[in-house]
Amino acid sequence: MRKDTSNVLRLRKLGIDTHTENIIFLRSDSQVCRSEGFTANTRVAVHLGSRHIIATLNVITSELINENEVVLSEAAFEKLQAQEGELITVTHLQPILSFSDVRAKMFGKKFNDSAIQQIVSDIGKGLYSKIEIAAFVSVCSGDNLALDEVIYLTKAMINSGSTLEWETPLLIDKHCVGGLPGNRTTPIVVPIVAAAGLIIPKTSSRAITSPAGTADAIETMTPVDLTLDQIKEVVKKEGGCMAWGGAVKLSPVDDVIIAVEKALDVDSAGQMIASVLSKKAAAGSTHTIIDIPVGHTAKVRSREEAFLLEYYFRAVGLAIGMEVEVMITDGTQPVGRGIGPALEAMDVLAVLRNEPDAPADLQDRALQLAGLMLEKAGKCEKGKGVAYAQELLVTGQALEKFYRICKAQGGFKEPVPAPLQHDVLAVTSGVVRSVDNRKLAKIAKLAGAPKSPGAGLIFKAPVGKYVKQGEPLFTIYSETQGEISYALTYLHSSNHIVELTAP
Amino acid sequence: MRKDTSNVLRLRKLGIDTHTENIIFLRSDSQVCRSEGFTANTRVAVHLGSRHIIATLNVITSELINENEVVLSEAAFEKLQAQEGELITVTHLQPILSFSDVRAKMFGKKFNDSAIQQIVSDIGKGLYSKIEIAAFVSVCSGDNLALDEVIYLTKAMINSGSTLEWETPLLIDKHCVGGLPGNRTTPIVVPIVAAAGLIIPKTSSRAITSPAGTADAIETMTPVDLTLDQIKEVVKKEGGCMAWGGAVKLSPVDDVIIAVEKALDVDSAGQMIASVLSKKAAAGSTHTIIDIPVGHTAKVRSREEAFLLEYYFRAVGLAIGMEVEVMITDGTQPVGRGIGPALEAMDVLAVLRNEPDAPADLQDRALQLAGLMLEKAGKCEKGKGVAYAQELLVTGQALEKFYRICKAQGGFKEPVPAPLQHDVLAVTSGVVRSVDNRKLAKIAKLAGAPKSPGAGLIFKAPVGKYVKQGEPLFTIYSETQGEISYALTYLHSSNHIVELTAP
Repeated sequence: MRKDTSNVLRLRKLGIDTHTENIIFLRSDSQVCRSEGFTANTRVAVHLGSRHIIATLNVITSELINENEVVLSEAAFEKLQAQEGELITVTHLQPILSFSDVRAKMFGKKFNDSAIQQIVSDIGKGLYSKIEIAAFVSVCSGDNLALDEVIYLTKAMINSGSTLEWETPLLIDKHCVGGLPGNRTTPIVVPIVAAAGLIIPKTSSRAITSPAGTADAIETMTPVDLTLDQIKEVVKKEGGCMAWGGAVKLSPVDDVIIAVEKALDVDSAGQMIASVLSKKAAAGSTHTIIDIPVGHTAKVRSREEAFLLEYYFRAVGLAIGMEVEVMITDGTQPVGRGIGPALEAMDVLAVLRNEPDAPADLQDRALQLAGLMLEKAGKCEKGKGVAYAQELLVTGQALEKFYRICKAQGGFKEPVPAPLQHDVLAVTSGVVRSVDNRKLAKIAKLAGAPKSPGAGLIFKAPVGKYVKQGEPLFTIYSETQGEISYALTYLHSSNHIVELTAP
Repeated sequence: MRKDTSNVLRLRKLGIDTHTENIIFLRSDSQVCRSEGFTANTRVAVHLGSRHIIATLNVITSELINENEVVLSEAAFEKLQAQEGELITVTHLQPILSFSDVRAKMFGKKFNDSAIQQIVSDIGKGLYSKIEIAAFVSVCSGDNLALDEVIYLTKAMINSGSTLEWETPLLIDKHCVGGLPGNRTTPIVVPIVAAAGLIIPKTSSRAITSPAGTADAIETMTPVDLTLDQIKEVVKKEGGCMAWGGAVKLSPVDDVIIAVEKALDVDSAGQMIASVLSKKAAAGSTHTIIDIPVGHTAKVRSREEAFLLEYYFRAVGLAIGMEVEVMITDGTQPVGRGIGPALEAMDVLAVLRNEPDAPADLQDRALQLAGLMLEKAGKCEKGKGVAYAQELLVTGQALEKFYRICKAQGGFKEPVPAPLQHDVLAVTSGVVRSVDNRKLAKIAKLAGAPKSPGAGLIFKAPVGKYVKQGEPLFTIYSETQGEISYALTYLHSSNHIVELTAP
């Protein structure tokens, strides 16, 4: 009885955004803190009716809230589906049994199937704190996961969220192992293969740390924020869509793990493979083409690394009943010219419209991918996919399909570049020897991308080009003079963005 | 110029206690968030004059603060030595170079001396986030640290904080590898060995997760909250002290790591050894006796585990020039009768006062430890230490020294048990077969220990004792009826706290 009254608290909203982390704020002198012995950083269960979440406690020692009040972070409000003024109770947590398998892995014991299922399920329920996820990421990092463990992880992630089903025996998708600015093949590939009669319900992500996600670029031409039902309708009508994946909760545990991996900047081949293939499998794909760009400022830095990834991708695909094909591509410099949502979209449209100065590298990559997909789907003979894709492109069938898909998604509009421009000029003459993808991306972000969809840069100095002193290496686009000078400050403090050599 | 003005923010205090974590709260629509691209969970540098700290960003989307205001967690206020109303700037962080060695360790590369030095130094500066520390703890956990790595870690931790020096060539200390309720040998050992003329500047910790730390128990008899100068004065006067270690910042990085280890409930032999020996070395000890209680509900569960720990303790001691002796003791049940600060202090006084019903096990453990210390310090022949310690105890010299130390620390007072009591009775008759240390500790905590110094329990059913049905197994002490019923609720939901067998 005592427990029932002392633990009841009234919810207050202070609008505190902690990203995805559930934080609960309680007064240090509240009855519940004193009777339960809660102190800062305690993990607690927060109950509202039959729902509950797990949260980390921050203690408030001021008069900011009353003793019988409680504040949740915005993420916690959302996950608990709670409203300000509702009454919640706070209780101690049971220990998480599956974490003992993470501890055992620290001692060198391999994960088995049921251990990984339980860990992923517990992460999905929000039982793991950020530091427990960090420990899980650490023991899985590097090459610490054997092939069978990657397979268990992939299967567990597929089971952790919803899955989609389509009325077609063959569903082919593509994925690029990121890190290359401007590599927007999706809005070219989708209309090509849809024009050939394939079903391609493509969902893409928004930028997390890059100047533009595929969804951001497409959004400058057509709405991408579609519900699952809208996606199904567009695909039923046109065979393909180009939507943002946010509305479709596929492999949700993956998003939680990725956030911690990014914060730690820890690469894990096993987790990356499980992440990609679980999302494709949950989306209903039977065939997947993986594009792995290799370059010293791309995500994958050597061909050896790419070969090992290829082995894992194919073997895990086999185990989950998915055919996986890997394309190892050039990742030494940006693809196309634009970096930033609208500027990348302009490259896409130039290719679809067969404009004479359309970026050849972007066109070529899109045709390679689409060609392979057409072959895999049996739409043409092996070796003739690229020619078929090219035919669909040059005859305008791809462009027409693109407009139709945009219309089905809510209408087409031209992407608009930002109004202010600043040319960054070569200080000497020479041949471009190398380009730093990461630093170019940083400049585009400082100029305002992706928040300002027209911001970013247009890159004009690909590797091998002879550039004269005073010629532009790239042009910065921005909404405000302030953002341009902000990008320039970084530019001036940074070396080797575009390296020239004497001709 | 632009950068200078937009990043200046006025500090506000809302009294938010996040334990040791530095959190900064900014408005999502503030100039600095928008221009720097800061989002929730970004790690940032917070500058005030020439000082700076690293903090994790929480974003506020409400009107709780103004756009040009910023809130810090209490820990961050303290570490930045900041006052409400002062102006701070917020900037991006440089990547932490030493974390690449943590990543390399994930790939199986061993730490070298300089890598560990740099990691510990960066943690000391607050550069590592909680999840980065969790990753470091994970790669060091279990048996993942080799002997040389433990030695590097110990040395790095010694260098991370202040060190004490004493005008004596020999300084002997003791440490117990925790987990055993009631094991309060310190306030008995210190007066014995000080009475023999040894220098023993003993500092102890408060409870973190247990019902009483040694400092909590001593505080019911004399003040323990001494500054470093006060400690030196007491030791100069009486040869020994019994102070709380909080004022003396020895091996501060260790406290940060321990907090994450506790949250993960991850044991790391290597880190525990580095933790204990670095604190002893920094405190100036030349000799250390390590007490390792072994029992299935103690921290160390098997003799094999204790033997391995002994090897590491001795080898690391050798490497840092400290003589280490290990005593493996019985950890199957609580020591003495009281669990909780005042109740444990009453046991201590009963031993020091040679009362006829003083707990024999506590007396015996204290004499073993003190005897070994007297032998090691050359105060008597080998094999005669226990007899010498006993002489100092039974003749009242230890009690007199105890009172003198208390007087020097600010005066002696009798510990006071809590006013409300509740007997927990045996439901059947039988011989006590086993006792669960962890569950007894939990009951003492629910009864109010250590916050209420008089709360806890007195244990009356040691292993091997014949208990009749209706006889008390233990008595709960509490300040409030509510806390007693809270302890009883847990008791009734829990099995096997005291297991009886038919006689």
